[in-house]
Amino acid sequence: MRANILVGQSGGPTAAINATLAGVYKAASERKDINIVYGMRYGIKGFIDSKYIDLSSYIKNDFDIELLKRTPSSFLGSCRYRLKDFNTDDSDYKIIFNKLNELNIKYVLYIGGNDSMDTIKKLSNYAELIQSDIRFIGVPKTIDNDLVMTDHTPGYGSAAKYISSTMKEIIRDSKVYDIKSATVVEIMGRNAGWLTAAAALAEDDDCSGTDMIYLPEKVFDTDKFLARANELISSRHNIVIAVSEGIKTADNKYVCDGLSGAGQADCFGHTMLCGTALALSDKITSELGVKSRGIVLSTLQRCASHIASLTDINESFCAGMKAVDFAAEGKTGVMVIFSRISNSPYHITISTENINLIANAEKTVPNDWINDDGTIDNIQVSQYISPLITGELAPYMVNGIVRHLVIEK
Amino acid sequence: MRANILVGQSGGPTAAINATLAGVYKAASERKDINIVYGMRYGIKGFIDSKYIDLSSYIKNDFDIELLKRTPSSFLGSCRYRLKDFNTDDSDYKIIFNKLNELNIKYVLYIGGNDSMDTIKKLSNYAELIQSDIRFIGVPKTIDNDLVMTDHTPGYGSAAKYISSTMKEIIRDSKVYDIKSATVVEIMGRNAGWLTAAAALAEDDDCSGTDMIYLPEKVFDTDKFLARANELISSRHNIVIAVSEGIKTADNKYVCDGLSGAGQADCFGHTMLCGTALALSDKITSELGVKSRGIVLSTLQRCASHIASLTDINESFCAGMKAVDFAAEGKTGVMVIFSRISNSPYHITISTENINLIANAEKTVPNDWINDDGTIDNIQVSQYISPLITGELAPYMVNGIVRHLVIEK
Repeated sequence: MRANILVGQSGGPTAAINATLAGVYKAASERKDINIVYGMRYGIKGFIDSKYIDLSSYIKNDFDIELLKRTPSSFLGSCRYRLKDFNTDDSDYKIIFNKLNELNIKYVLYIGGNDSMDTIKKLSNYAELIQSDIRFIGVPKTIDNDLVMTDHTPGYGSAAKYISSTMKEIIRDSKVYDIKSATVVEIMGRNAGWLTAAAALAEDDDCSGTDMIYLPEKVFDTDKFLARANELISSRHNIVIAVSEGIKTADNKYVCDGLSGAGQADCFGHTMLCGTALALSDKITSELGVKSRGIVLSTLQRCASHIASLTDINESFCAGMKAVDFAAEGKTGVMVIFSRISNSPYHITISTENINLIANAEKTVPNDWINDDGTIDNIQVSQYISPLITGELAPYMVNGIVRHLVIEK
Repeated sequence: MRANILVGQSGGPTAAINATLAGVYKAASERKDINIVYGMRYGIKGFIDSKYIDLSSYIKNDFDIELLKRTPSSFLGSCRYRLKDFNTDDSDYKIIFNKLNELNIKYVLYIGGNDSMDTIKKLSNYAELIQSDIRFIGVPKTIDNDLVMTDHTPGYGSAAKYISSTMKEIIRDSKVYDIKSATVVEIMGRNAGWLTAAAALAEDDDCSGTDMIYLPEKVFDTDKFLARANELISSRHNIVIAVSEGIKTADNKYVCDGLSGAGQADCFGHTMLCGTALALSDKITSELGVKSRGIVLSTLQRCASHIASLTDINESFCAGMKAVDFAAEGKTGVMVIFSRISNSPYHITISTENINLIANAEKTVPNDWINDDGTIDNIQVSQYISPLITGELAPYMVNGIVRHLVIEK
């Protein structure tokens, strides 16, 4: 009897998570040993609440696959839901496994970031405990690029491409007047500066680049920041600065602490950050007397499918396809990983790693990529990021506007 | 003897102002009666300070022309400088006309918005006064679309395209979780809501559209806003709202008044606005108890050449070419205008109108496009905007990042 497969999406939206879903669907629907491809609505939480669909009703042909690759956010919907430790409360697990058995599901693929890998870890460990043969595979997805054991994560390349191209456009914009000015751009990244590091790639034959870049991996020194800004403004007039939302001063406080809207916690206990760029921009104006503007890239950096990286989308798609193969081969309790075999020419392999080594760990930018003054080493960063942002996937445009594949409007 | 031509760019950056410059250069360099094409650095203020270049040193071939079309901001640099009334102080005028005569310049083209047209108006009126035969032509450019006597302005279509596509991506992103949420997006527009109106175009077969849109043309009622948001959130869960930065309450105060960073005035006396989206987002959270996020499109909406409208770029280029012809034909004291002959198929003609009727006037969104509750009539707005955002001009990408033509890095 042919088995069914269940796929879910979890955590924050990206421009690439649907390419992975497209890869899963493509591979699963072509396999003779797989029957129905179910999709969880709103992640594992939605599945617990009996929200799931038969994906063949929504992805009908290869054109839909291509459209899905160009659709940002999470086609199936997402959740931020932490399963309890099954040793203390296994009620969710009983519901999940009952449903999986009812639906004859043998493979569960979960596309997500750090928190989502915790879900796969717990479900695969529980399956082992109850001797279920259902297989659980994690497929990485996060713009944050902070998962361990993989060279990089699907979604990161597209966000990095958006950031580097947008920084170039912002830098061009900032040079328009012959007066001194500063622009501070706030980029996502609570503990890991991978996204902010992409601002380094704006430097090129046609662009002086981002003048100052600050990652959360190093303590932020406001006085040194202002001194450096002052020095640069006196020679270059217009400076552009990129900062991670998560930069903290020596007293372990976020730079944005105390500002309106900051400090709310989500259900994983992560503090919502906002206002870092505005706080620093205000400081530049008040301390240096220079016109300054704060720009927050906000969700635009994770949903800008119209400028996705072809490399990222292709890799995300392949990660989804390979995940199906790995599950069918009998793997469980693993996450799909990328290994960079060569940088020039760029070449990666796709394999798997034990989920217990991955869940809840966090990969930050290496210390030796960051200079003593907190700025970054452009060369090392560029070598790492450049291949990941290569190539474009032209969006499908209808009447001048991007077109997406959706379950409901 | 062949005459020379001088072209300048003024006011805020756009994605299309360099396409107009490219058109001016192309037409001027092909005319037998024109010799050198000079460019003012940093507008009329830079010219007064003897900052100008010979454009042939920087635009060497048709490839450079194409690259210039894809470069945002202002290639020549810009200024915000108001010439004094020459009846009270003609010192600037004397400097300018001396330099024009020295350089054998017979034609001056100035690409800009409202304030820039004031410059052309004064210079052409002064030329008449002193019986100079130097001709002055304004070429419109503003994302704000607020110039009178022209159907629309170069730069508006590209900004509107960015806004409508970005709104679609934001709406998709906002629907990812199965929890109630609101997103408030702040769009440029001090007195005119043309840019914010473009958020209406997100509604399509694949998108429920922007749920609430507020323009500065109507008084903003915070209570009604919250009541409407509350009503929509109860049925749709996730709502996305677009607001102009310039919306004001009945007491004539900006919604963002009192927030950090707001209230600084530029040299034209325009108040700098920021914080409208954050203020309203905070209100939704505090009054309705709903998770909310504020997003400010900031300068991204005016510099995103990577998603420029082909129609806008082509029209901007033609406006530049035609401006040269109009000057050569003997016109002066006029601005190039677009007249929409037909909407479907879309067809415009390019002609000129008396600058005295245009400078310092402001065109806002017609009252009958705005409903009594302050929201807008999607159908009328879409019919007007849709042709202006049609078509894409693929950016030139190098190593995955946009490439620009620049005078200096």
